[in-house]
Amino acid sequence: MTLKNRRIIVVGGLAAGPSAAAKAKRTNPNADVKMYEASESISYAICETPYLIGGLIEDESKLEIYSPQKFQKEKDVNVHTLHLVEKIIPSKHKIIVRDLRSRDVFEEEYDKLIIATGSRSRRLGIDGESCRNVFNLKYREDALNILNFLKTEKPKSAVIIGGGYVGMEIAEGLRSRNIEVTMLHQFKLPMEGLEQESRERILAELNNNDVQFIPNVKVEALQQDATGLVKHVITDRGSFESDMVIISIGVLPNTDLARDANIRVGTLGGIITDERQQTNVDDIYAAGDCCEVKNIVTNKPIYLPLATVASRAAWVAGENAAGGRAVFKGAIRAMAVKIFNLQVAQVGIGSEEASQYGYKTITEIVNARSKNELMPGSEEVVIKFIVDKTSNRLLGANLFSCCGAFQRANTLAVAIQQKMTIDEISRLDLIYAPPFSPLWDPILIGANQIKKKLLL
Amino acid sequence: MTLKNRRIIVVGGLAAGPSAAAKAKRTNPNADVKMYEASESISYAICETPYLIGGLIEDESKLEIYSPQKFQKEKDVNVHTLHLVEKIIPSKHKIIVRDLRSRDVFEEEYDKLIIATGSRSRRLGIDGESCRNVFNLKYREDALNILNFLKTEKPKSAVIIGGGYVGMEIAEGLRSRNIEVTMLHQFKLPMEGLEQESRERILAELNNNDVQFIPNVKVEALQQDATGLVKHVITDRGSFESDMVIISIGVLPNTDLARDANIRVGTLGGIITDERQQTNVDDIYAAGDCCEVKNIVTNKPIYLPLATVASRAAWVAGENAAGGRAVFKGAIRAMAVKIFNLQVAQVGIGSEEASQYGYKTITEIVNARSKNELMPGSEEVVIKFIVDKTSNRLLGANLFSCCGAFQRANTLAVAIQQKMTIDEISRLDLIYAPPFSPLWDPILIGANQIKKKLLL
Repeated sequence: MTLKNRRIIVVGGLAAGPSAAAKAKRTNPNADVKMYEASESISYAICETPYLIGGLIEDESKLEIYSPQKFQKEKDVNVHTLHLVEKIIPSKHKIIVRDLRSRDVFEEEYDKLIIATGSRSRRLGIDGESCRNVFNLKYREDALNILNFLKTEKPKSAVIIGGGYVGMEIAEGLRSRNIEVTMLHQFKLPMEGLEQESRERILAELNNNDVQFIPNVKVEALQQDATGLVKHVITDRGSFESDMVIISIGVLPNTDLARDANIRVGTLGGIITDERQQTNVDDIYAAGDCCEVKNIVTNKPIYLPLATVASRAAWVAGENAAGGRAVFKGAIRAMAVKIFNLQVAQVGIGSEEASQYGYKTITEIVNARSKNELMPGSEEVVIKFIVDKTSNRLLGANLFSCCGAFQRANTLAVAIQQKMTIDEISRLDLIYAPPFSPLWDPILIGANQIKKKLLL
Repeated sequence: MTLKNRRIIVVGGLAAGPSAAAKAKRTNPNADVKMYEASESISYAICETPYLIGGLIEDESKLEIYSPQKFQKEKDVNVHTLHLVEKIIPSKHKIIVRDLRSRDVFEEEYDKLIIATGSRSRRLGIDGESCRNVFNLKYREDALNILNFLKTEKPKSAVIIGGGYVGMEIAEGLRSRNIEVTMLHQFKLPMEGLEQESRERILAELNNNDVQFIPNVKVEALQQDATGLVKHVITDRGSFESDMVIISIGVLPNTDLARDANIRVGTLGGIITDERQQTNVDDIYAAGDCCEVKNIVTNKPIYLPLATVASRAAWVAGENAAGGRAVFKGAIRAMAVKIFNLQVAQVGIGSEEASQYGYKTITEIVNARSKNELMPGSEEVVIKFIVDKTSNRLLGANLFSCCGAFQRANTLAVAIQQKMTIDEISRLDLIYAPPFSPLWDPILIGANQIKKKLLL
């Protein structure tokens, strides 16, 4: 193999795949880069689809960031959609591919392989999940099916199974179409990755917006009527009537192909890579939702199926497959969600998670104003800080407010990644300007409050 | 002197003074803390006054954060307003104070003294500056005078002398009262601390909002009419008629008292302190607008009369005067201003300043979307990065947009304070959520663009 004519194959073309492929080609323009994708489309803005459902985004076709043709032309990568990679044979540096149109099977040799097989929707494993009014929201096809159903059947009610963050976004979308929404969730409060205070606030926001949230419920059956539509969701807490059902209970990494090739998978279910995104098998890299990543707060693996993480890891995989020496240092979990009039953001780890990892923590909740309360638009910002008592380091934070949570979370995200102590955070030179912020930013108020606690 | 009965005197009660006094008392509740202020009020939210002028804030009295009585009661500090400290005699640990009501003069002994004499408005030094329709905006009295004039005289036009950031805020305030505004500025573009691109954008915003900006102009006289009002501002570029004049050409540190006591003052005009806020004279501390501070980007002194800097330094002075061991590490310059529909923010140093300090820099301008352009409220965010070519460290940034500049500036403020390189910034795990931000935040897009340049 010469670097010059290196054959790089990318398996999977939705999010990490295109990023890795494009980066590989940019890094080594002489490489022969091929990308195989089992579905029809690539590079689709799936995270924006809840806003398609809600009607905020009107033109679905605009969510296709690249058509296969456009990607091939602009990125100089050979794109093969409707091609399923069925097997990797590492000993021969070969893959076996099925053309889903012709059903033909063929072999393809690689010098470097990048696995970007992504994730799939977690399923309930009960009857009725495949009915035409039961949906996931994971692929373009899912979004199109929901849109089509909304348009043709004009449902009046929906049951969302799952109270995670995609569930929240879908609930808002459906409510903005004036559809009655019932949300069934297995725990007492929605969004179990967040702190109790955030979760309670989210529940209040759901209630305020007429989403009926049913806690502690187990779905037992999806009962179909004579026309084959699910009309009742049967649970251990009764039956819920509905014109449509959306199942949003998380995702699972797609690792069958990797496992079959003896590529190591971790206890969290994702492919294990080193910080160059290389798997345990020579010349095979992986990136995206099919992988675990390193949590740079705990230095432990985490399964974090987020587009940001996928893209950054994919760049590293692509660059290294093409002969580069890039490193992906990991992620902290940085996420935010809009739930009606509420912004909720999380950066770093939560208080329960911190205990599980053996940290002794101090937590502190700050209720502060986003700016001088005399100024128009001044609002309450709530920040919960999770601090390691031993090192005084900020491990994580939850933030919520109407408007200002997301951006302040990014500021704290940098502090967490830099392993800053509360004392260091309390000394930060941050902006004060009456139209935007108070003399002491809520971040500084919080850090100063915690300092007092740490001194006790 | 015992720590227990330590007598701490604070000279000046507007911003740094009350912060220092309250902190001293909190640190050592047995200390006897006195604060002398020459004017009638203390602890006034002067930064909010442009919004009083514009009518956004209606009740002026609410800008008084503490009345002297309330401060004395809540903070347990002896407050003496209308008392002017006329002299410090370090050899005797004494000050000489004049009671401006009774005109009596008396001496007061201190164990520790904190100078917080603040700053005063820079003056033009020409006739007419004291006329009753010529204003500064530095003290509560100034704000009250302006408000009163607006109410009683209903001016139709105003000339603002000075195109700095307070001038911008006043211009917006006056325009919102439908007063014709002419801004006279000594340079070609407003706000010379900022980058050229920001300054051009600000000029456009002024034009869009019917502020007549006259560049490169020198004010020669303020011509009074028979009633003693200034009706014409005479310049080297002609005469400008106006019903009122506001002079906003910056501030100067008040250091006469300190100089007289042989306290060292720096080349920028402010008192020099160490990082414990101690001056060169034993037992005398200083904080606030009367001081220079350390720029933690350059490690050189900077004169930065900002409330954030004053408050943080004042806490350190107060704590140390009371027997503590606090440290003020300095500031980076973190500021933002709203100019009609524009947010402009600056963190760290500018490109010209960087050259003056001997840095070889690379600059990069990023025009990015605040979020996916399909989402409502997506707007352009412009960031100019100033990067040290040798260390690849981010030295500063200017940001402007309609809505999202200020908060992104705070995120970069942390990066600058942590001395992060562009490579480190490009790896930051920042939030992506369609209602708030794009997959690659403008900060990351910028850092990645610069990385390419740095590799060349």
